[in-house]
Amino acid sequence: MDYQGRLVRLRRALSDQKLNGLLVTHLPNIHYLCGFTGSSGALLVTEGRSVFFTDGRYAEQANAEVQGSQVRIVRKSALAAAARSFRTSRVRRIGLEAAHLTVAERAVVTTMVGPRRLIDAAPIVEELREIKDVDEIEKIRAACHLGNELFDRVKAVLKAGISEAEVAGELEFAARKRGIEQMAFPTIIAAGKRSALPHGRASGAGIPPTGFVVCDSGVILAGYCSDMTRTVHVGPPQPKARRVYDAVREAQQAAVEAVKPGVTAGEVDRASRNVLKIHSLDQFFTHSTGHGLGLEIHEAPRIAAGQKKELKAGMVITIEPGAYLPGKWGVRIEDTVVITESGCGILTPGSKDLISL
Amino acid sequence: MDYQGRLVRLRRALSDQKLNGLLVTHLPNIHYLCGFTGSSGALLVTEGRSVFFTDGRYAEQANAEVQGSQVRIVRKSALAAAARSFRTSRVRRIGLEAAHLTVAERAVVTTMVGPRRLIDAAPIVEELREIKDVDEIEKIRAACHLGNELFDRVKAVLKAGISEAEVAGELEFAARKRGIEQMAFPTIIAAGKRSALPHGRASGAGIPPTGFVVCDSGVILAGYCSDMTRTVHVGPPQPKARRVYDAVREAQQAAVEAVKPGVTAGEVDRASRNVLKIHSLDQFFTHSTGHGLGLEIHEAPRIAAGQKKELKAGMVITIEPGAYLPGKWGVRIEDTVVITESGCGILTPGSKDLISL
Repeated sequence: MDYQGRLVRLRRALSDQKLNGLLVTHLPNIHYLCGFTGSSGALLVTEGRSVFFTDGRYAEQANAEVQGSQVRIVRKSALAAAARSFRTSRVRRIGLEAAHLTVAERAVVTTMVGPRRLIDAAPIVEELREIKDVDEIEKIRAACHLGNELFDRVKAVLKAGISEAEVAGELEFAARKRGIEQMAFPTIIAAGKRSALPHGRASGAGIPPTGFVVCDSGVILAGYCSDMTRTVHVGPPQPKARRVYDAVREAQQAAVEAVKPGVTAGEVDRASRNVLKIHSLDQFFTHSTGHGLGLEIHEAPRIAAGQKKELKAGMVITIEPGAYLPGKWGVRIEDTVVITESGCGILTPGSKDLISL
Repeated sequence: MDYQGRLVRLRRALSDQKLNGLLVTHLPNIHYLCGFTGSSGALLVTEGRSVFFTDGRYAEQANAEVQGSQVRIVRKSALAAAARSFRTSRVRRIGLEAAHLTVAERAVVTTMVGPRRLIDAAPIVEELREIKDVDEIEKIRAACHLGNELFDRVKAVLKAGISEAEVAGELEFAARKRGIEQMAFPTIIAAGKRSALPHGRASGAGIPPTGFVVCDSGVILAGYCSDMTRTVHVGPPQPKARRVYDAVREAQQAAVEAVKPGVTAGEVDRASRNVLKIHSLDQFFTHSTGHGLGLEIHEAPRIAAGQKKELKAGMVITIEPGAYLPGKWGVRIEDTVVITESGCGILTPGSKDLISL
């Protein structure tokens, strides 16, 4: 990964915001800027240098992973050490990651540095991360292809009577064997009435003899996330269920077709919502159409109603409309796509035809 | 769970701190106070009422789970809705969870309410959560017993040549079949040289023909975490390896024996560190002796050097000293224990004899 290039772009963005440095505390931002994948540390980027602070537990890992920044191993809090290093420097205005730093952590930094030089900054690194470089797109593609293949395992084992958790377990075990670091989020296998819960994590409930099963999962492979949802039907679907499935599929397709550079995130959201409105299902679509993903499963941009953010080539986002009829059942169909100069490419190539198992 | 009793204790603690209410935003604290297990919401507890705010995605779940608090479903941000509700109330001084609220979230609340009535509060709910009630202890015990049984699966499959990830996958699949919600943290299977990494998540690396394997895992069962580490040896251990193992075991036992009400967390940490010092291994013990656990895998109290916190009956903590020889290998042995009136009871009953596989 081109960590030097990322630091160059970060310094340019800091300069645009009249900042002389940034105290980076959000771990995915640290990973992005210097390669460290552990779970504790702080990165201080100023005009002249970039120093990563962590404690003894991560000494070996930091020395092996960090590129383009110095590594300093400290005895206690990495945050306090970074603040101390900043205090004694000549750097004037330093940005803090207000979207991630807690109020208590900010108080620690303020105590050490005084309030004058500290600026609560907007998400600067997150904005850089929106546009993926080619390395990143290939890593996300690899994760998505694996996620897509894992869905075959779901189709092979899913049947009436076994528990949602067992289906999730089969998928996750197959993922482990294929070398993932971890799942990107708790696997959703939501069957029958539970399919009406947009976030219905796999539970001990058995798969009913008939009805929809929403299957939403993602892996983390070589640091990058995948995300894909398919909804299958156990037994032959009733005409009404088939109609709702087809409407969600049409909405998903419309949103995918709306994606291209220059369009706003809100317009993509509207494309799926409009189709569901035609089918009188828009009131059952209770979440946004999608989100960016990369090192994190939820990143900028949000693909939601009213979002003015303009889409650009190199962004990777999900497109995942759904319809949830409370107490009855639900359907969601989700692809991950990469925005290209002319539209978008689908990274989750699995069929979206309704499958009856 | 006795949610009403917890609200009573919270209000007493708030009154002690001259607060008229608390805006609870940390999800495990929300779970503790009202039962909601979803991933978005805010709870406003004042002297007269307790209201839980969440958005449409969680409407069904909130209505099914929340007890002892009103549920209000809002269109957009639950945090903003809670702040708005507070703004129009007569409540004077409201605490914010400074250890969890981000600087940006606090700015949202301040914009809506003004700065005057907002107080950055210490971790109040976390302190209530330190002392588990009987329901909670039984849930943690059940999770720990399951975690302990899962270690049998590790012993059955672990052998030279298969990957760390496959061992972790076997354990996690068995856990899924037994009905867990999810793993409590990324499973650590760290073999050979990787055993010297205290946080060596299971990787694609194969288990070497001989050497230590640190196996550290936890499950979440019915909301509560387990945590247990055992270190096994592939092939017969050399005398030096055996000596280090025995020293860590002795240190772990000494710390367990030091645990009782009235003792400080720092004294328990010292008990294990002193034993390792006698064996000239203290410089290789690079983390603290343990931590509380419950709804979260890491909770108060910290069992670390210099911690003055007094242990009390009803606390549940881990005792997990280790020794890590960089570039060579490492050993860690960990139990979860509940503090009783006379000492402590071990919730992870598996043998700590060195096993050669």
